[in-house]
Amino acid sequence: MKFNKVLKNLSTYEAGKPIELVVREYGINPKEVVKLASNENPYGTSPKVVTKIKSLVKNMYLYPDDSMFELKEALASKFELNSKNVIIGSGSDQILEFAIHAKCKKGSKVLMAKTTFAMYEIYAKQVDAQIVKTKSSQHNLKEFSKLYKKHGADIIFLCIPNNPLGECLDKDEVYEFLKTIDKNTLVVVDGAYQEYASFKDEKKKICPKELINTFPNAIYLGTFSKAYALGGMRVGYGFAQEEIISTFYKIRAPFNITTLSLAAAIEALKDEEFVQACIEKNFIEMKKYEEYCQNRGFEFIPSYTNFITILLKNFISKEVSQKLLEKGMIIRDLTGYGLNAIRVTIGTEEQNIKLFTLLDEVLEELK
Amino acid sequence: MKFNKVLKNLSTYEAGKPIELVVREYGINPKEVVKLASNENPYGTSPKVVTKIKSLVKNMYLYPDDSMFELKEALASKFELNSKNVIIGSGSDQILEFAIHAKCKKGSKVLMAKTTFAMYEIYAKQVDAQIVKTKSSQHNLKEFSKLYKKHGADIIFLCIPNNPLGECLDKDEVYEFLKTIDKNTLVVVDGAYQEYASFKDEKKKICPKELINTFPNAIYLGTFSKAYALGGMRVGYGFAQEEIISTFYKIRAPFNITTLSLAAAIEALKDEEFVQACIEKNFIEMKKYEEYCQNRGFEFIPSYTNFITILLKNFISKEVSQKLLEKGMIIRDLTGYGLNAIRVTIGTEEQNIKLFTLLDEVLEELK
Repeated sequence: MKFNKVLKNLSTYEAGKPIELVVREYGINPKEVVKLASNENPYGTSPKVVTKIKSLVKNMYLYPDDSMFELKEALASKFELNSKNVIIGSGSDQILEFAIHAKCKKGSKVLMAKTTFAMYEIYAKQVDAQIVKTKSSQHNLKEFSKLYKKHGADIIFLCIPNNPLGECLDKDEVYEFLKTIDKNTLVVVDGAYQEYASFKDEKKKICPKELINTFPNAIYLGTFSKAYALGGMRVGYGFAQEEIISTFYKIRAPFNITTLSLAAAIEALKDEEFVQACIEKNFIEMKKYEEYCQNRGFEFIPSYTNFITILLKNFISKEVSQKLLEKGMIIRDLTGYGLNAIRVTIGTEEQNIKLFTLLDEVLEELK
Repeated sequence: MKFNKVLKNLSTYEAGKPIELVVREYGINPKEVVKLASNENPYGTSPKVVTKIKSLVKNMYLYPDDSMFELKEALASKFELNSKNVIIGSGSDQILEFAIHAKCKKGSKVLMAKTTFAMYEIYAKQVDAQIVKTKSSQHNLKEFSKLYKKHGADIIFLCIPNNPLGECLDKDEVYEFLKTIDKNTLVVVDGAYQEYASFKDEKKKICPKELINTFPNAIYLGTFSKAYALGGMRVGYGFAQEEIISTFYKIRAPFNITTLSLAAAIEALKDEEFVQACIEKNFIEMKKYEEYCQNRGFEFIPSYTNFITILLKNFISKEVSQKLLEKGMIIRDLTGYGLNAIRVTIGTEEQNIKLFTLLDEVLEELK
């Protein structure tokens, strides 16, 4: 059967390996497997949210409120916006897809950092858009500017802080850059890890309201998958001027969020205390990773997120990751991103101790 | 901001009004609101599934197994297929979207019945495909054949049984039709309500394995939203030859099914007894609707689903629906489909009695 030609060149996203797979393939007891590969909140979902959702499980047979009235109101209220400025996606990923399908077609140009969230490129290729990337792995706005002057762009993706590297642009430099961008270029500010970055350093904090009011061509994306500890429920959100939101709504399929996911997100917004406590613990544990790296002589990228990227020199990241996997420790190898590096989610104290122990074992074995 | 031109002509799906909306807009006690508008299973989710999911709510922070290994194995096993023949969508809707994006672009042709599931047309318009429809509202394969000979088609959509009308083609006539279709035309057999149809009449039963082995250009779609009582969880599936499935996988975004949805679908497949009991009750209650219509002199379409379409003559369906809504009874007005008709989900005994009472009241008021 013939399919659209563009499909031939498509690649698919390589998800972090699930615990179930390691159990199946290596016969490891599920309780022994530790996953530090997908930047989930290692402290689990807020107990308040868990209790609430348990009481709603019986509603699984009912379609969700497709207007998402309550969640949109809650987000609008928290960020001092109007619900007309809000769109909800099945993860913020889905809003990336809306952006590409709204702005791009064959030959459109999409500008991004060399090493950034893989879905920007995957979605762009689905519509045969042309990908323009900086030479630097990390976000370098001078390079972005040069490339923008040379090629223009229908969409610019800024991942602030950046996944999978962890570095983070300052708000001020982002604003200076945005001033130079044509109003017809959509700028996607992906703030999936903003809660972490703004906790660590106020200079990194991007206020969605100020952003979209200053730059009506910008859209801010946030997610419930990371700090809000709902990675399995697939809820993300976008804030933008109504013109952009209403256009994206035309592309959204009905019922893109499950009944329980909507309720979980609404409830999670009510427990900010839990979120802040998790973030605080994240950076206490992050210090241990930095110390570990310094002690072992590994270079790492100072991180504004809940993961850390460690650059390997005398070891091959693919081998290190595989050896760890066989011991029941799942991390992310960055070979696919062109780096000899591993990305490790900052886990709980216990998980991190296990990672350090197993990594030492593996490095000894590979020496 | 400029967006892709194709978006200008897009319409969006009008979802059945949620209970929350009726509560908000008409100030009705949520316990008094009855929703017979979205063809949910009125008996609720299987208690076994509810119990299982309650025990898994704590896993909301974990991303789903993106390989969907266990659910694909369970479906493959039930339908005697290989898991390579299975794709899982966020509702079977999403697989419609994959089909359109895999096969169609500007000017592609998509053939369907005049009155059928709205998403076929909505997705087709997103890629600027040309819609070809029969003159008859209900599926008429002679008309399909004539139109196919005249225009050809990249995709043919057959909704068996048909939503929102409820009629159902016989398996034999579908097979006769499929024999005349070119192997490069994808035929989507949407079996969202097949469990109901095949219970009522063996002649309507389509076996996915036989279908895709006889017609490698066909894809069979099923859903957990109706008989399996998981409308809120957004899980549907497609069965086809590996060539089709692997192509659709290129379009699928990662993590399109939530962690709890995957688990719920797996569990629901284990409780077929519950599903069959619901279907049996559905047709006992359906008889009461048929009797009601006969007593009131209303024409209805004999239905092979869990809803019934009632054609109105001396009343305007939009007014009837609105009056019912104000009394806390949500049904579907089919004015948007060009029909002066209402579609009512077959509810529980209690819900149906309420519908009959309120409908009598409304008809009296509108006389």
